[in-house]
Amino acid sequence: MTIQNFFNPKSVAVIGASADKNKVGYALLFNLVSGAKRDIYPVSISEKEILGLKAYASIKDISAEIDLAVIAVRADIVPSILEECAAKKVQSVIIISAGFKEIGAAGTELEKKVADIAGRAGITLLGPNCLGTIDAHTDLNASFAAIKPKAGQIAFVSQSGALGTAVLDKALAEGIGFSKFISLGNEATLSEIDFLQYLKDDADTKAILIYIEQLSAGPEFMRLCSEITKTKPIVVIKAGRSVRGQQAVMSHTGSLAPEDAVFKAACKQAGIIVVESIREFFNMAKLLQIGVMKPLQKLIVLTNAGGPAVITTDLIDASRSLSLITLSTETKEQLKKVLPPMAAFNNPVDIIGDALSARYDAALKILVEEKSADAIIVLLTPQMMTETEATALLLAEYCKKKPIIPVFIGGPTIAKGLETLTANGLVNFTFPKDAIEALDNLAGNASKIDEKNKATEINKKETEKLSETATEKEKSPAPKTLTMMSFAETADLFKKYDLTLPGVLVKEKSDLTEAMKKISESSANGADGNVFTLKAISPDVVHKTEMGAVKLNLKSVAEAELAWEEIATSIKTKKPNAVIEDMLIQTMVSGKEIIIGMKRDAVFGATVLFGLGGIFTEALKDTSLRVAPITKPEATKMISEIRGINILTGLRGEAPIDIEKLADIIVKISQLATEHPEIKEIDLNPVMASSTNADIVDVRVMI
Amino acid sequence: MTIQNFFNPKSVAVIGASADKNKVGYALLFNLVSGAKRDIYPVSISEKEILGLKAYASIKDISAEIDLAVIAVRADIVPSILEECAAKKVQSVIIISAGFKEIGAAGTELEKKVADIAGRAGITLLGPNCLGTIDAHTDLNASFAAIKPKAGQIAFVSQSGALGTAVLDKALAEGIGFSKFISLGNEATLSEIDFLQYLKDDADTKAILIYIEQLSAGPEFMRLCSEITKTKPIVVIKAGRSVRGQQAVMSHTGSLAPEDAVFKAACKQAGIIVVESIREFFNMAKLLQIGVMKPLQKLIVLTNAGGPAVITTDLIDASRSLSLITLSTETKEQLKKVLPPMAAFNNPVDIIGDALSARYDAALKILVEEKSADAIIVLLTPQMMTETEATALLLAEYCKKKPIIPVFIGGPTIAKGLETLTANGLVNFTFPKDAIEALDNLAGNASKIDEKNKATEINKKETEKLSETATEKEKSPAPKTLTMMSFAETADLFKKYDLTLPGVLVKEKSDLTEAMKKISESSANGADGNVFTLKAISPDVVHKTEMGAVKLNLKSVAEAELAWEEIATSIKTKKPNAVIEDMLIQTMVSGKEIIIGMKRDAVFGATVLFGLGGIFTEALKDTSLRVAPITKPEATKMISEIRGINILTGLRGEAPIDIEKLADIIVKISQLATEHPEIKEIDLNPVMASSTNADIVDVRVMI
Repeated sequence: MTIQNFFNPKSVAVIGASADKNKVGYALLFNLVSGAKRDIYPVSISEKEILGLKAYASIKDISAEIDLAVIAVRADIVPSILEECAAKKVQSVIIISAGFKEIGAAGTELEKKVADIAGRAGITLLGPNCLGTIDAHTDLNASFAAIKPKAGQIAFVSQSGALGTAVLDKALAEGIGFSKFISLGNEATLSEIDFLQYLKDDADTKAILIYIEQLSAGPEFMRLCSEITKTKPIVVIKAGRSVRGQQAVMSHTGSLAPEDAVFKAACKQAGIIVVESIREFFNMAKLLQIGVMKPLQKLIVLTNAGGPAVITTDLIDASRSLSLITLSTETKEQLKKVLPPMAAFNNPVDIIGDALSARYDAALKILVEEKSADAIIVLLTPQMMTETEATALLLAEYCKKKPIIPVFIGGPTIAKGLETLTANGLVNFTFPKDAIEALDNLAGNASKIDEKNKATEINKKETEKLSETATEKEKSPAPKTLTMMSFAETADLFKKYDLTLPGVLVKEKSDLTEAMKKISESSANGADGNVFTLKAISPDVVHKTEMGAVKLNLKSVAEAELAWEEIATSIKTKKPNAVIEDMLIQTMVSGKEIIIGMKRDAVFGATVLFGLGGIFTEALKDTSLRVAPITKPEATKMISEIRGINILTGLRGEAPIDIEKLADIIVKISQLATEHPEIKEIDLNPVMASSTNADIVDVRVMI
Repeated sequence: MTIQNFFNPKSVAVIGASADKNKVGYALLFNLVSGAKRDIYPVSISEKEILGLKAYASIKDISAEIDLAVIAVRADIVPSILEECAAKKVQSVIIISAGFKEIGAAGTELEKKVADIAGRAGITLLGPNCLGTIDAHTDLNASFAAIKPKAGQIAFVSQSGALGTAVLDKALAEGIGFSKFISLGNEATLSEIDFLQYLKDDADTKAILIYIEQLSAGPEFMRLCSEITKTKPIVVIKAGRSVRGQQAVMSHTGSLAPEDAVFKAACKQAGIIVVESIREFFNMAKLLQIGVMKPLQKLIVLTNAGGPAVITTDLIDASRSLSLITLSTETKEQLKKVLPPMAAFNNPVDIIGDALSARYDAALKILVEEKSADAIIVLLTPQMMTETEATALLLAEYCKKKPIIPVFIGGPTIAKGLETLTANGLVNFTFPKDAIEALDNLAGNASKIDEKNKATEINKKETEKLSETATEKEKSPAPKTLTMMSFAETADLFKKYDLTLPGVLVKEKSDLTEAMKKISESSANGADGNVFTLKAISPDVVHKTEMGAVKLNLKSVAEAELAWEEIATSIKTKKPNAVIEDMLIQTMVSGKEIIIGMKRDAVFGATVLFGLGGIFTEALKDTSLRVAPITKPEATKMISEIRGINILTGLRGEAPIDIEKLADIIVKISQLATEHPEIKEIDLNPVMASSTNADIVDVRVMI
């Protein structure tokens, strides 16, 4: 392959060179001439000399060998020009001209013609409809972008020329250097695959950024990238065009696995980092610029201000892969020796507002030796004494010992500091979130808790450990001194708020017949259709299921009587002194399990929680929350906020749940809690909700 | 209240004024003198004159009335100084000095003393341990921050001085103006509530930013903010300190409703916009700077580059509240008249790379008249012809007709354009995501589909509509020409990959006895413990449940035989020509419902999907995806990725699912799909997973 010609040609011809400064043909020539010394040959049919160089009427007239021809002429004459290049045995060609595939059928035809000519002549062809290439190390700008990137170790391959220019321009301002830039254009022959193949072994390139709109060869892309990412990180931003283009081939399960999800899955498997926004793309570039190529998950935060450090801590806590390390006792002792007593010696290490650079120095000297930390995020806010430039210089030194992520927050006051950072090969992350997001993206799906080398596998033991931890958490509520309100009191209280607790209290087993008859008569199902539940009501029985105090699915009085005996026996066995005050007989209601709960917050007072019951609450924490008092519209909004809302609005053609009835309960509980400050907690669990009803099946009120 | 004194005092005394440029007492005086003309009185025990002003040894020596005293002396002498202020009848005092509550018990004692003195003397007291106040309209800087903010309409109240300085400094660079800045410090007496109350009626303030670490009075904060947000938006960033502080009061349901969630819920109810990062905080400030105070959800994107526009479209599609409008036919027609044919006339409107400012002008003139749009996002990338400054000037004009959100992406090349934007009261959003995120935050929980005035309520009708839409979606798969592989073939194929389909195929009803015996003998439950399922196997029956082709819960041969009849009758009724090839008798297995599916992607080939079955898949789309071939570690990783993973790792003390067995199935399906390209889709739905087994209960293979 002669791809090398796109980055370090000895001789370049610009076909369509122009003396008009507003023309692409001028920009191309100007950029080439402005770079390292090479043999540059303008080809122009109107000018005899451009930028002091002799212009040729045709490439045929040039006697020297030409490594690379850059073509910027009208699309329709490109084929004949390319034929001339072939005759001249030019090895590599960039077609800048637009007016090919992107304009429709005629252009597609023209592009095919061009590809055929290149194929027959063995020309490696970049474009058409592209910006060209830039090599910051060989100082070549074979593009019409008026940008001279800083030399660096990142290659940038882009299917959008404009995005390429914008990123290169912004990068210039922020100290990010590049090895090579390739604007792919329409990819008539050479594609991202060819350039990736080349970059894989390119010594100047340590990391690769790609902007992709469409992939032609998915599996080959995966295979190649899997190879590359073993040594060089790849960051991809993919734009959605192809999603729309390929919607037609999607079938019904397509909604679960749209093409975009497949693309992301493939990238993940190939070790590629996929980002969604130019902002993330750019922040990843910053990480790569400072040589961070592998996940850094265990962090120290060093700061001269509390507020931003707290926010950074919150962001790290919320991150899926990052954590703040616990500083070793030794490190803390050392810090105490060199920092003022008002400083914070935990992580974040706060060297407080009057910190001069010497205090950053003293802290960093100790912190870079902390073995368990992967990196140090250094926060700096411009306060009265802050020495921004001197601190920036320090970071440039200490980053040789441990990765340093600078986050200087400010404007004009810190400008000189930022210059110092970039002059020393570092970058600045504008806000803490920019750094955290980039580190998170780099870590991919690595979990916080996994050891690095175990990150790719959850074996059974770990799974078990995981579940133990979860249980551990559940076991450790603060000791409570709350007592449970009796069922009768609860029922009375609820009645005042028009909240019905279904069922009939029964004192004696012999009263079951009448109670069940009464329930059945008032029920829509009539005397026969009902299935019943029997529960013991006892101040000594809080967790009914565990005590065997509930029997379900009772279809007759006989079954209910048997259940009565079983409940009594079970309680007697498990808790001999427990007093059963009543038994509660209810019809079993069906529907979706809902929980509605009330708790009091120290600052805001009564709050009401809504959620899908059972496993949804426990596993997915799919709940929403409001502070009482809650209006009906607010309650409805609250219901609609849960992720699983379509479980309530009717899946698989089911009738939608009566949302209003649920909202009513929320409003009433909120009102009850507001008017009864002595009540500390309420749990309605479950409420069974259907298209017609919302029945409170079990309730626990704590005072 | 005399809070007005903090913003427009006629006379100010600086107690602790200093001639040493490194001292706070110098900075305070310097900043005051640098502002609008006021009577400024330095009080110093060592100097006779500072910055050309006569210095007094004590405030008592000043004969004029003092509206505001700013104290920057050692903490321990602050009480006596404050007594002197009281004697002098100073109305308002800012205590800059640190060394109070924040240093522990002794400081808390001192702070209480100070608060008492202020209380008795009727002094309004800001601080201690604060930066002071700034008023950009009265040109007062009563702080030691060396920043002169641009005058604007945003008030900024901060519990962190350093964060305040950093944001003000950064804002200066980005053209964001402020009305007032208040650094609250320790809030010995005046708190955020007092200043919010004041800002509510402050004519210079149209919007409020607050950085909060701790709230003292939750309900009062809510009540007041609910009032304010009716006319002035409030943006809050809350740092997590208090979460840690209040962990002790959390009980077990606390994990569902941590204090932070309560804070967010309360803010939501009060109409406050809560953000998590300084970056979002800052981008919200940008929106407020350009006068965007109410949700703008329906957007037009105008661009000179395709790539960034596609990314912006993706971000808007992914947003919970924003959407691109469909341009009216009229608008499109008008655009066609003034734009080149290569332009894109849909939304995004792409005026392509060679657009001069005149083309932006022509497009904007038309687009600002598009009634259905709330705002126009204008993307600009620096290309060869781009006129950044002229375009910036245009935006300053057109934003008078419709909100314009500028997103100029680049560095040095666009710097002049950004200056032009900010010089004209506009701002620039660095990346599309910055603008989208801010608009999303402003829209809060408003849904994309809701009309604005209905956004607060989902009534029953809408709920039903919602569910109809969902059904509509499910109904519209692309027409398929795939055929289903027979059960026997499927079983054979699966056997080759060591995948077992449980059950026995039965031709005649009379064979049931033997088949059930056979199954029972090989089962752990023995002959009696099993419960069976009977299914019809027929190429004509794809959806078994709908056709009545499945019977569950069969406990005896007699029940199975009855089921056989029922199935046969049901199918005959519903599809008279259907041929039942076999019946499949299986034991019913229990466990968690899992789905594993295979589909082929146009670009990447076979993909395998894993998810929790049933409602989890349908309602929550809780699935993960990989491209085949899949290794065992990758399969394990894939399983661990689902949100509801702890449903599999053992909730409520349940035994964890055997993850390895599930991973095995994924690996085998991936292998099968790789080696059998003729198979287009595989659905294992459900696989029943338990701590010991992973049984494929139903399978559908499409070729």
